[in-house]
Amino acid sequence: MEAAASSLLSVSPVSFARIRSSSFSSVPCRRVQFSVRACAAATGGDAGGSGEGKIVKAKEKGEWKLDYSGEKPPTPILDTINYPVHMKNLSKQDLEQLAAELRTEIVFTVAKTGGHLSSSLGVVELAVALHHVFNTPDDKIIWDVGHQAYPHKILTGRRSKMHTIRQTNGLAGFPKRDESEHDAFGAGHSSTSISAGLGMAVARDLQGKKNHVISVIGDGAMTAGQAYEAMNNAGYLDSNLIIVLNDNKQVSLPTATLDGPATPVGALSKALTKLQSSTKFRMLREAAKNITKQIGGQTHEIAAKVDEYARGVMSSTSSSLFEELGLYYIGPVDGHDVEDLVTIFEKVKSMPAPGPVLVHIVTEKGKGYEPAEAAADRMHGVVKFDPKTGKQFKTPSPTLSYTQYFAESLIAEAEADDKIVAVHAAMGSGTGLNYFQKRFPEKCFDVGIAEQHAVTFAAGLATEGLKPFCAIYSSFLQRGYDQVVHDVDLQKIPVRFAVDRAGLVGADGPTHCGAFDITYMACLPNMVVMAPADEAELMHMVATAAAIDDRPSCFRFPRGNGVGAPLPEGNKGTPLEVGKGRILIEGSRVAILGYGSIVQTCLKAAESLRELGVAATVADARFCKPLDAELIRRLAKEHEILITVEEGSIGGFGSHVTHFLSLNGLLDGNLKLRSMVLPDRYIDHGAPKDQIEAAGLSSRHIAGTALNLLGRTKEALHLQ
Amino acid sequence: MEAAASSLLSVSPVSFARIRSSSFSSVPCRRVQFSVRACAAATGGDAGGSGEGKIVKAKEKGEWKLDYSGEKPPTPILDTINYPVHMKNLSKQDLEQLAAELRTEIVFTVAKTGGHLSSSLGVVELAVALHHVFNTPDDKIIWDVGHQAYPHKILTGRRSKMHTIRQTNGLAGFPKRDESEHDAFGAGHSSTSISAGLGMAVARDLQGKKNHVISVIGDGAMTAGQAYEAMNNAGYLDSNLIIVLNDNKQVSLPTATLDGPATPVGALSKALTKLQSSTKFRMLREAAKNITKQIGGQTHEIAAKVDEYARGVMSSTSSSLFEELGLYYIGPVDGHDVEDLVTIFEKVKSMPAPGPVLVHIVTEKGKGYEPAEAAADRMHGVVKFDPKTGKQFKTPSPTLSYTQYFAESLIAEAEADDKIVAVHAAMGSGTGLNYFQKRFPEKCFDVGIAEQHAVTFAAGLATEGLKPFCAIYSSFLQRGYDQVVHDVDLQKIPVRFAVDRAGLVGADGPTHCGAFDITYMACLPNMVVMAPADEAELMHMVATAAAIDDRPSCFRFPRGNGVGAPLPEGNKGTPLEVGKGRILIEGSRVAILGYGSIVQTCLKAAESLRELGVAATVADARFCKPLDAELIRRLAKEHEILITVEEGSIGGFGSHVTHFLSLNGLLDGNLKLRSMVLPDRYIDHGAPKDQIEAAGLSSRHIAGTALNLLGRTKEALHLQ
Repeated sequence: MEAAASSLLSVSPVSFARIRSSSFSSVPCRRVQFSVRACAAATGGDAGGSGEGKIVKAKEKGEWKLDYSGEKPPTPILDTINYPVHMKNLSKQDLEQLAAELRTEIVFTVAKTGGHLSSSLGVVELAVALHHVFNTPDDKIIWDVGHQAYPHKILTGRRSKMHTIRQTNGLAGFPKRDESEHDAFGAGHSSTSISAGLGMAVARDLQGKKNHVISVIGDGAMTAGQAYEAMNNAGYLDSNLIIVLNDNKQVSLPTATLDGPATPVGALSKALTKLQSSTKFRMLREAAKNITKQIGGQTHEIAAKVDEYARGVMSSTSSSLFEELGLYYIGPVDGHDVEDLVTIFEKVKSMPAPGPVLVHIVTEKGKGYEPAEAAADRMHGVVKFDPKTGKQFKTPSPTLSYTQYFAESLIAEAEADDKIVAVHAAMGSGTGLNYFQKRFPEKCFDVGIAEQHAVTFAAGLATEGLKPFCAIYSSFLQRGYDQVVHDVDLQKIPVRFAVDRAGLVGADGPTHCGAFDITYMACLPNMVVMAPADEAELMHMVATAAAIDDRPSCFRFPRGNGVGAPLPEGNKGTPLEVGKGRILIEGSRVAILGYGSIVQTCLKAAESLRELGVAATVADARFCKPLDAELIRRLAKEHEILITVEEGSIGGFGSHVTHFLSLNGLLDGNLKLRSMVLPDRYIDHGAPKDQIEAAGLSSRHIAGTALNLLGRTKEALHLQ
Repeated sequence: MEAAASSLLSVSPVSFARIRSSSFSSVPCRRVQFSVRACAAATGGDAGGSGEGKIVKAKEKGEWKLDYSGEKPPTPILDTINYPVHMKNLSKQDLEQLAAELRTEIVFTVAKTGGHLSSSLGVVELAVALHHVFNTPDDKIIWDVGHQAYPHKILTGRRSKMHTIRQTNGLAGFPKRDESEHDAFGAGHSSTSISAGLGMAVARDLQGKKNHVISVIGDGAMTAGQAYEAMNNAGYLDSNLIIVLNDNKQVSLPTATLDGPATPVGALSKALTKLQSSTKFRMLREAAKNITKQIGGQTHEIAAKVDEYARGVMSSTSSSLFEELGLYYIGPVDGHDVEDLVTIFEKVKSMPAPGPVLVHIVTEKGKGYEPAEAAADRMHGVVKFDPKTGKQFKTPSPTLSYTQYFAESLIAEAEADDKIVAVHAAMGSGTGLNYFQKRFPEKCFDVGIAEQHAVTFAAGLATEGLKPFCAIYSSFLQRGYDQVVHDVDLQKIPVRFAVDRAGLVGADGPTHCGAFDITYMACLPNMVVMAPADEAELMHMVATAAAIDDRPSCFRFPRGNGVGAPLPEGNKGTPLEVGKGRILIEGSRVAILGYGSIVQTCLKAAESLRELGVAATVADARFCKPLDAELIRRLAKEHEILITVEEGSIGGFGSHVTHFLSLNGLLDGNLKLRSMVLPDRYIDHGAPKDQIEAAGLSSRHIAGTALNLLGRTKEALHLQ
């Protein structure tokens, strides 16, 4: 094979591209003669090296051996592709090589930037096949969740910007409509793609258009109710819609347990596993190939054949869940076989009125990159790493994350109270509950990507006397909001919500920003709403929530590390008096009342002010609900200026303080009140520091606000 | 049969109760000898009459002929039952008669009160069977949605209060934990019962208890994602949990189209229909009977037999959707055959570790009451009516409901703009979109009880250039909140939300109260947030929303009728200038700034004030976002007192106005600002007037607030 390839070494990149211009589907495969290795070698000079270890190697035993040396890998085919239109005439081998090149490119770039690695590695063949067969932006590809969209981004005009991904002013880590016309729908949260795709399909039909719509959704995302709602509606409406179920036997989230990868929870996972049983799977693949090779001629016949493949071969397996929902099931298909994928997609594309089709493909998360394949979390989301070994360059920190402090203190509570249980929605790692699960395997419930169910399930647990802590990110809790209102708060059931990732979240950007939780939780009549100023306070609030057993409660805490506050003994907090804040610094004229971890910034602002001769009072509200009436009265009465500060939207803590002051006549006089909140726009992804600056919530902004109100506008301007 | 019965006429109620004390399950059925008619006649005196038309008649050809004369029907068996414990020893015939009596009782009482009629009529046999077999409150019965819980309420100690249902200080129209220990979980919104039940089952297991948990859910409710999330998790956890799928081939909501009853949309409905095909259904019923009659002895054998019944008989049908989700499927069972129900439930109860079992029962909504069976909406929710004819005593009103005005104006918009489409979540009647559907059948999408999908589906429609109006009740929109944030607002996609039932809703109570929408919508950066002061303004806002095509928008409007405002020609509104309010009355010193339909109350308050010599300014904000900065500045600068009024929670309009005033220094002086909002508690069901009083939002409260701020506290006290 290597010898045969070397005879083509003299082909130049230009003629190489021309040679590849015959279409894969209309021309017989030219196996072996035009080997991948040859292509790579042909353009190897571009990459500044052609040593044995540096080029994309030929296929051996059906597997690619890829170059992860850390030097820029040669990518001769990828180099010819700026947009999907350049992929149309690639041969099967070209497409395979393109996939391999994408894999090396992704490892190479993500090693330098950090980001979502393994989900993208799992779908390179899929991305290649989709963009070969379909024509974006006319055809719509919707990537569910969207962290697997790196190959899609590379293939749609954004390759040169991949080194900026997730960074301030750089590419977003998720599909984003503003970023490219090839991003049909933005994402970040899971399980929305079928709904959006169905909407696009119906709009197409109503307007007499003919384009295709493809929703790519993972098996983890399939556990969410919205996916079911959408499939049920798709089956009913019967519009042409292609759903690709990317089944990687993993929740596509950083949800590994401490002992290894976590398969999606829920019975659905078992059903999918049945579909994948290896012998049957191989048999099906072969059957698929035979059928697709034999078919030709009339569209109707093709449809009939695909039908035979789909229904006949599959009848004894578990495709019926999807069929019951009215989808036309095809699969399972090897998601790493470009040829199979292209064949299936071309057939589905050519069917005149298939209705909603579900193509079930099976992939490996992290495919082709050994360190990812071997890692417990498959290297789902990574910081910068050494591509040779996969070892991540984690910045050493003297403190742990708020998430870990939460987990430690919840374990400490549960050691002392056997009623405590924990619920999360496919976020064992993200919420720290993996640690809890390790210690109390019987008392930790991962319900899948199912925040709605998580909340009501927790309510059910609480009605029977248990003390559930339901740990959900701020932005994901939006998905269980009705359940928080209707099932928990209205019934005054003591569910404890640990609201992680509250406030700005850095690289994940606005989809994951926890901007609204204070607003949407504090308006609920029965809810106790808290936020800790540091990790020790967080531990006390875990204890407080455990102790509050006659009503629901929640506490929000940020992404990121603690500030080094001295921890309570054994990590076990002491319940706080509900509705009591505290004064941290006594000053005069100016009072800064912070809520949550931004209290640290308030302290810094006070320090700046002190340097300018202003002795500001700083208070930590601790509670947004119930408010500390006494504290707020005192701050209002003893100061000329009162500034509330929170990392949350309008309508939250500041509004509650203002409402209280107003009702009690404390605004009728000359008190100058300002509420500093997140601005009325979404803050793009980027470095946390940049985001805080963009939000106008830095210590300089706080100090500047105080100076302005003191009439020292020049100094304020200077500061800001 | 009648002759045989008459020989028992001398049995007194007391001995009658004793005779019935042999258990149905342990004693052979005493068919015919002790007829229903006899029982009825025996205690007929109680009911003050025994004429032919007044008693519950014997079964004829398997059907009951019930007495709906409007006079109190005789209910001899029901009269002996205060709590479920009194039902344990009833015979099969007794239970059948009890069901029949319940039916007459429900029609008799609901005719006088109004309420949810037909869902309750559909489950009388189910309620009887469940309470005969299971032991609440130890066993937990969770009624999904809960409007079918009337027979349950009657059987659990609340019969004597049924005449107060849905009225101020009366029984709630839904299960309510505060009301009875037999109400295991409160409801109102759909599809929560499996989640809650699973939580209770898991809590039971963790605490070593042995009780049973039964979730009763309708086929309509099964279309919601939360039900799927919960089934998937139940299949995974494998706890013992009994799910009764009450399949009445109807969305259990007032969702009839204009032409007749609406079946649940979605492919699931087709799957269920397959299960019900009549011959197979009958065959299955017979098979069930034979099997259950033959079985006996060891529990293990019983389980095996039920398994045979469930799997063997059903293998060729569509039970697989549930089986794929890990549920043990039994059915379909005739939900009006008490004997079948009791048999099945006893067997399931006796199985030691069945895991989650789904018992699929088939019922008729409105069963046994001809006017309900004949009505397009099955008399789902009714006002007082004549029990003889079913004719409802609707109070004539000179105006239509806000809902109807919305529908009319949306039709007018769509006549002029073919891009306009409409989406609702199983609420065609409730949202008025039935009228739209009648006019534009291709452009109206009922997606099922699936608010999450509805929102993202609408977003998909909008990305392709259509102009979707997504009509969802305020409290139900909570269920699509994440989709509103993540799929619509963040991407600035122009979906228009028609938020019906905003504010207090009267008899449905706090589960349906639209308290939070202003708060949770106005915090979103890209959303235009409006509320009309009257029905003409509503029409203008529909036109405004249609015209806003570069961002999302919403407008909220209340339950209830318009105020008689002159309508625009052809019901077609004129787009308002975005962010512009209006002054309705020019006054001095006091300004009242209303948002939404409560502007009418503000006008009344101004009238009261005028009578007391205070000329208040009244303004209609129209927009909560963007605020009318100019208007608010002017009100603040030209008045001593500014009162904002809204029928919504804290964090909404008042907070936005206050934040604006504060940021602009307009609160730094002596302006007295008050925000009148819904109080920080849930307002119980009741008459709208009582609710407004309880909320402190009547015109007297508004005028009183102004008088207080003017220092005229005595007059204020007198007024309030």
